[in-house]
Amino acid sequence: MSGLRVELITIGDELLLGFTIDTNAAHIARTLAEAGVEIVRRTTVGDEADRIASAVREALERTGAVITTGGLGPTSDDLTKPSIAKIFGRKMVLDEEIAAALELRWRARFPGGTFPATNRSQAEIPEGAGILTNRHGSAPGIWLEDEKGQWVAMIPGVPREMRGMLADEVLPRIKPLLGDSASAVISGTLRTTGIAESAVAEILGPNFLGEPGTPLGSLSLAYLPGVAGLDLRVTAKGMARMEAEALVREAMLKLRSRVSAYVYGEGDVDLASVVLDQCRSVRLKLAVAESCTGGLLGERITNIPGSSAVFLGGVIAYHNDVKRDALGVREEDLRRYGAVSEEVSVQMAAGVRARSGADIGIAVTGVAGPGGGTREKPVGLVWIALNVSGSEAKARRFHLPGDRIEIRQRAAQAALEMLRRAFIKG
Amino acid sequence: MSGLRVELITIGDELLLGFTIDTNAAHIARTLAEAGVEIVRRTTVGDEADRIASAVREALERTGAVITTGGLGPTSDDLTKPSIAKIFGRKMVLDEEIAAALELRWRARFPGGTFPATNRSQAEIPEGAGILTNRHGSAPGIWLEDEKGQWVAMIPGVPREMRGMLADEVLPRIKPLLGDSASAVISGTLRTTGIAESAVAEILGPNFLGEPGTPLGSLSLAYLPGVAGLDLRVTAKGMARMEAEALVREAMLKLRSRVSAYVYGEGDVDLASVVLDQCRSVRLKLAVAESCTGGLLGERITNIPGSSAVFLGGVIAYHNDVKRDALGVREEDLRRYGAVSEEVSVQMAAGVRARSGADIGIAVTGVAGPGGGTREKPVGLVWIALNVSGSEAKARRFHLPGDRIEIRQRAAQAALEMLRRAFIKG
Repeated sequence: MSGLRVELITIGDELLLGFTIDTNAAHIARTLAEAGVEIVRRTTVGDEADRIASAVREALERTGAVITTGGLGPTSDDLTKPSIAKIFGRKMVLDEEIAAALELRWRARFPGGTFPATNRSQAEIPEGAGILTNRHGSAPGIWLEDEKGQWVAMIPGVPREMRGMLADEVLPRIKPLLGDSASAVISGTLRTTGIAESAVAEILGPNFLGEPGTPLGSLSLAYLPGVAGLDLRVTAKGMARMEAEALVREAMLKLRSRVSAYVYGEGDVDLASVVLDQCRSVRLKLAVAESCTGGLLGERITNIPGSSAVFLGGVIAYHNDVKRDALGVREEDLRRYGAVSEEVSVQMAAGVRARSGADIGIAVTGVAGPGGGTREKPVGLVWIALNVSGSEAKARRFHLPGDRIEIRQRAAQAALEMLRRAFIKG
Repeated sequence: MSGLRVELITIGDELLLGFTIDTNAAHIARTLAEAGVEIVRRTTVGDEADRIASAVREALERTGAVITTGGLGPTSDDLTKPSIAKIFGRKMVLDEEIAAALELRWRARFPGGTFPATNRSQAEIPEGAGILTNRHGSAPGIWLEDEKGQWVAMIPGVPREMRGMLADEVLPRIKPLLGDSASAVISGTLRTTGIAESAVAEILGPNFLGEPGTPLGSLSLAYLPGVAGLDLRVTAKGMARMEAEALVREAMLKLRSRVSAYVYGEGDVDLASVVLDQCRSVRLKLAVAESCTGGLLGERITNIPGSSAVFLGGVIAYHNDVKRDALGVREEDLRRYGAVSEEVSVQMAAGVRARSGADIGIAVTGVAGPGGGTREKPVGLVWIALNVSGSEAKARRFHLPGDRIEIRQRAAQAALEMLRRAFIKG
């Protein structure tokens, strides 16, 4: 196992009471795990001096190495530093440089006001502490270490400041402590869509990677279903970095070989970006016609930098009149088949392609709910049509689960996936 | 203070390593705080029996009342129950009913397979434990209590299952333990947009709610900036519910009186929903023309159930040809002023209104980056135009901070805010 075991303590009433979701903790944990640090425990406490102190004291007893976030900023209750100084038997001393920076910041916020003397107390730091520079804010972090090598790194709770300080100041101090035997947590993610978790489970069966006791069998395989599809994550831990990386690579290939038709990428790749690359490589221009997704498909596509090389735009055809006037859907077909139908989806895709001059038109129409569902056309029914220049038009019906937001997100993803597969099938 | 102090322990390697962000903890904390329970500490540990046991034991020593999530499901490592049973000196016993349910679920995933005997161990529960029914999944929760009244509630980590079980099974068991003296954490949020945090800070000044020591001064005021704008949250705790509610109401009124022009709502209201209500009340129909937001504005609007009563649709005019062909923007103006200009935004808004037959057309064009910025038109420059039937066209220039995603989100929010203010100014 790793040479360095660390605990993480996030501080703040907003976190403890659940007003703020603790994304900092996840970021720090992932970053440390990748670097080969073993995270033992994470704790959240509110802005109360005695509770901060007891949480840090207990964590130090277990690992001797603690990172805290929060309680440092000029607007916070600022209890982190004095509480932890007391544990280390240090008194608080005023740092004139920090005080000057805080005063500057305060004057920028309240021009013409008198800087309150109490605010200077925020510039107090534990005697003998190291300063962690904050390139994205005014409150510096603190590195406090005793003669036995026990340490606490205190960094801000503002995500941008936290991320910068973790990378620039904390990691460089941690890496020398890791030792040669450091084991990293290595993981790989295979992103699939268009197949249910249960279907993947049936394809893979139990102990797919390997029987317990074998090297591959020591890896964990997690099924992570979401609106974008099912992610499969393989994780290796408790072994040397090289071995872990090789095993994860092997496991990813093994997984991919069994579900390849559904895999659109690895890591945190976005399907929209995969599809844009496909279009770009064959110089095809894309346009969208959206009813139930109401702009979401266009939003997904234009979220990707550089999408303008491929994406022309499209029509948000929410009302039937817009389907008729802006896309040329026939009035009688809207009446006969309804807006959520194969016929209308096909005409929407053809219309947007023709009118925009694109090579590919893709259309989505469905019942996102919560109202508007019928027995024949229930909430979750979605038709997606694809019109590619020189190919026959295709349309597919989906029954998508979830609430309004999920149905719309699944519909946009299904549309992108339909396009991705059209390229693969030629 | 509250009659009931509780600790929360979330269990799982995925959480500990930061692969999964712990939204469960925030949900449970918020729910308990609202009910008047005092949350003392939150802890996350991985799937290791001894670490689960020590975290739970320490929490029980502090409060005697613990809620855990995770480690119960049929696919998990399932260490939560035996680890905690040991603390209570209970042995694990097989529950035939649960075993049957698990086998049923397994057979549905692997039809034709042989149910492995090891899986039956997942149906073991601590002797004498109460079962918490799971209406959204197969793994039931556990309520374990000793003769001194110390208890641990174990609920699943799957968010939907966790939420259901917390509301239906855990809260009803907790409420009788609260006592009459229970103090609730009461908070209120005022949502503003179009004004910077520093400007609000200058308007309000320090100790805005009241000097420390006064009743209103005991409330905390948090500035929560985000892409939707600045939220101002007032929180009262450590007092009786009635008093807290009255003080929060008073504080919200006081705040509102100073920044009213920028306030679009309270709580977690979405500006899109406010604007839709305004349109609906005067029976005006809305259409959008989007360049840099690429569908995001339409997506925001159609995310709101019932938006079809107001929203007709619009055009995603990403490429200039679409601005010209689908919106009637003059080719020479695109050349002379560029796509990101007052002239083009005004023509886009007029075009989408006229062609869709809407009463209101709103248009967004800008440089979202990361590429495409120039010295004259830097990344973040956005023009938004409003064309309301019977009124003069309006356009406004914005310089929006952040990366591509943030700029687009801020642009959509600014467009909605421009519309909201048009209604207020008449």
